[in-house]
Amino acid sequence: MTATDHKPKPQTGPLAGLRIVEFGHFIAAPFCTRLLADLGAEVIKVEGPEGDPVRAWGAQHQGRSVWWSVHGRNKKSVTLNLKDPAARDIALALVAKSDAVVENFRPGLMERFGLAPEAMAKARPGCILARISGYGQTGPDRMMPAFGVIGEAKGGIRHLTGYPKDVTDLPPVRTGVALADSLAGLYAAFGVLAALYERRENLPGTPVRIIDVALTESVFSFLEGIIPEYGFTGAVRQPAGSYIPTAAPTNAYRSREGAWVLIAANSDPLFSRLAVAMERPDLLENPDYADNKARVAHVTALDAEIAAWTERLAAAEIFGRLEAAGIPCSKIYDIADIAADRQYRAREALRQVFDPQFGREMLHPAPMPRFDDTAPGGDIFWPGPPIGAHNEQVYGELLGLNPETLAEMKGKGVI
Amino acid sequence: MTATDHKPKPQTGPLAGLRIVEFGHFIAAPFCTRLLADLGAEVIKVEGPEGDPVRAWGAQHQGRSVWWSVHGRNKKSVTLNLKDPAARDIALALVAKSDAVVENFRPGLMERFGLAPEAMAKARPGCILARISGYGQTGPDRMMPAFGVIGEAKGGIRHLTGYPKDVTDLPPVRTGVALADSLAGLYAAFGVLAALYERRENLPGTPVRIIDVALTESVFSFLEGIIPEYGFTGAVRQPAGSYIPTAAPTNAYRSREGAWVLIAANSDPLFSRLAVAMERPDLLENPDYADNKARVAHVTALDAEIAAWTERLAAAEIFGRLEAAGIPCSKIYDIADIAADRQYRAREALRQVFDPQFGREMLHPAPMPRFDDTAPGGDIFWPGPPIGAHNEQVYGELLGLNPETLAEMKGKGVI
Repeated sequence: MTATDHKPKPQTGPLAGLRIVEFGHFIAAPFCTRLLADLGAEVIKVEGPEGDPVRAWGAQHQGRSVWWSVHGRNKKSVTLNLKDPAARDIALALVAKSDAVVENFRPGLMERFGLAPEAMAKARPGCILARISGYGQTGPDRMMPAFGVIGEAKGGIRHLTGYPKDVTDLPPVRTGVALADSLAGLYAAFGVLAALYERRENLPGTPVRIIDVALTESVFSFLEGIIPEYGFTGAVRQPAGSYIPTAAPTNAYRSREGAWVLIAANSDPLFSRLAVAMERPDLLENPDYADNKARVAHVTALDAEIAAWTERLAAAEIFGRLEAAGIPCSKIYDIADIAADRQYRAREALRQVFDPQFGREMLHPAPMPRFDDTAPGGDIFWPGPPIGAHNEQVYGELLGLNPETLAEMKGKGVI
Repeated sequence: MTATDHKPKPQTGPLAGLRIVEFGHFIAAPFCTRLLADLGAEVIKVEGPEGDPVRAWGAQHQGRSVWWSVHGRNKKSVTLNLKDPAARDIALALVAKSDAVVENFRPGLMERFGLAPEAMAKARPGCILARISGYGQTGPDRMMPAFGVIGEAKGGIRHLTGYPKDVTDLPPVRTGVALADSLAGLYAAFGVLAALYERRENLPGTPVRIIDVALTESVFSFLEGIIPEYGFTGAVRQPAGSYIPTAAPTNAYRSREGAWVLIAANSDPLFSRLAVAMERPDLLENPDYADNKARVAHVTALDAEIAAWTERLAAAEIFGRLEAAGIPCSKIYDIADIAADRQYRAREALRQVFDPQFGREMLHPAPMPRFDDTAPGGDIFWPGPPIGAHNEQVYGELLGLNPETLAEMKGKGVI
């Protein structure tokens, strides 16, 4: 892609024809609509005239957030000051032209703006409304303030992401990404499409179909066997650090140069192959390692044996031997490793996208999930736009407001 | 719910009317289809006569996995030995009756079973096929063995989930759940619904619409600002332990009884309120804590001040003060905390479901996401069934095979 090739592409993809209005900010709702926009949905992002706070987050260049190039991509940005009573009719006019609405204000705030579901139902019978919040739209704690880290803590994943007390007294670590927000956004996107399937034939009456996504419950939903096992046995799953408590060996080991090497050889055939790759057939004779149960019981000694081997070898040599033996293994990748990896490159999982805001190419992740090429799949149609970049297009062409009205609204701070 | 109230409920929900065949095992594909089944889709899970290996994972009761009650719920189980050539026609007959197929074998294995997309297209023009694998269906590493931990390591989240080198030499921790598998399953479910939207009007020709979900890329997609910031500045995001590197204070602190208390007071107004709640107005006079930038620079001293306060108080007292001040905070919840939490209880996020396999109620998470009550949302219709519990219903009623044929196939080990 050259510097001249930076016109927005026309949107295509499996969701082409779908129109979504986002009343969102920060991460969860904007991530939800980005997923939908990446697959071809037309997303109109409504921002206050001051813009989404994420526009000022993280690394900046000339006052612009680098992340915004990705987080705002494929969407149309319009400004609207929802606190101004004059904004309500505009907002409802946008809803009237749309199939679904995604919002992540604190519960009750949309209602205060005059945008309750009943108002939406009048503007757009059968509209779909996805609401993302920390604790959900109901219940005694629904108004409590919640950030993503709270969702991760109350959702039960933070507790598990740490070391056992006898290893270290350090607190459980943060996953390092906006896990709760992104999960909630993905669930909301899934919910919107489920509601669209439900309404594929006709609109069953006028009520809005509401999807209620809590950060806490989005995280909680990933606890797999932990929930029924607690219910059945009362067992409270505890953090297990870097290994899997029920299968051995699976752990991270240091290579000679100090890289973390993850080795997952926790079935009998894999362990046999590992012992051969380590040139340690004696391990297979040792009753302490005879089966998974024995290996779990003696995991400290076993991990020490493996670490003593990995510490003598360069990571490349370790992987050469393990891959030849068909043993699942990986360097613990940082973003530079990912960008250099041949599989990510072959699948174009990272893409260079020219961003006129920055006057250069920006590194974007590919849309998720991938579709075959029998029809257009997801794509990057344009990078995150400036605040209000689509005011004229959306307010003028879609809603039919004339330039004088727009100028007046701008003068009054409504848009 | 009483012990007699354990008949399966008829399936309802937004995805009622949709039929999915799962050729899956372990976590990713079965989690995908559980999400779809929870919202009302009819899911036919095809298992080898020996059953999905997850049936033997984790806590057991009389040879049955407790987790299976949840992992297999709302699905119909049929047995089919795909390695037997006689299985192919049955498998294609199931595809012919379905809207979508979900599989997570290693790339190429479905083709070896005679179930290539071309064969599916003949059986069911316009069918949707979601394929989940470690590395994706294309690229030089597609055949490499991958477990979830590998997806998490190669996807970049494991690297971030640890402490800085100067804090500890312990390896980055595992998130403690099947993060890569569950994320890939959720993306696949989202992709299936996107493809259904695309095909809402008519079937554009006969090709199967393939969705290709890699564990690695599912994790990678959650790296938010890390990707464009690496591209723009070359900065490689490093693990930050239990705090957020760009905003302070946000960390986990010990209460008097040793519980981890998460406090997120990283804006100026929140920090002011925290200082008041701590009865430490002097902190607001200290230039080291004057704004977020200063607080980040002096985070170690600031965290020590907060920890010295929390260590003197019981967790309940800390939360009482912080909640009154509107400061986001939480105990780091384990599963027992979740089950006892009033918000989870008010929203029935955990449900008791009678499971005749166990002769008692089992603890299940609610379906995700939640829908309003203007029409049926998700539900738990029945717990995970025994292997082949629906052979007669599916093979007999749906495919029209007679009892003699079924008996013969069973005798030959085909089903």
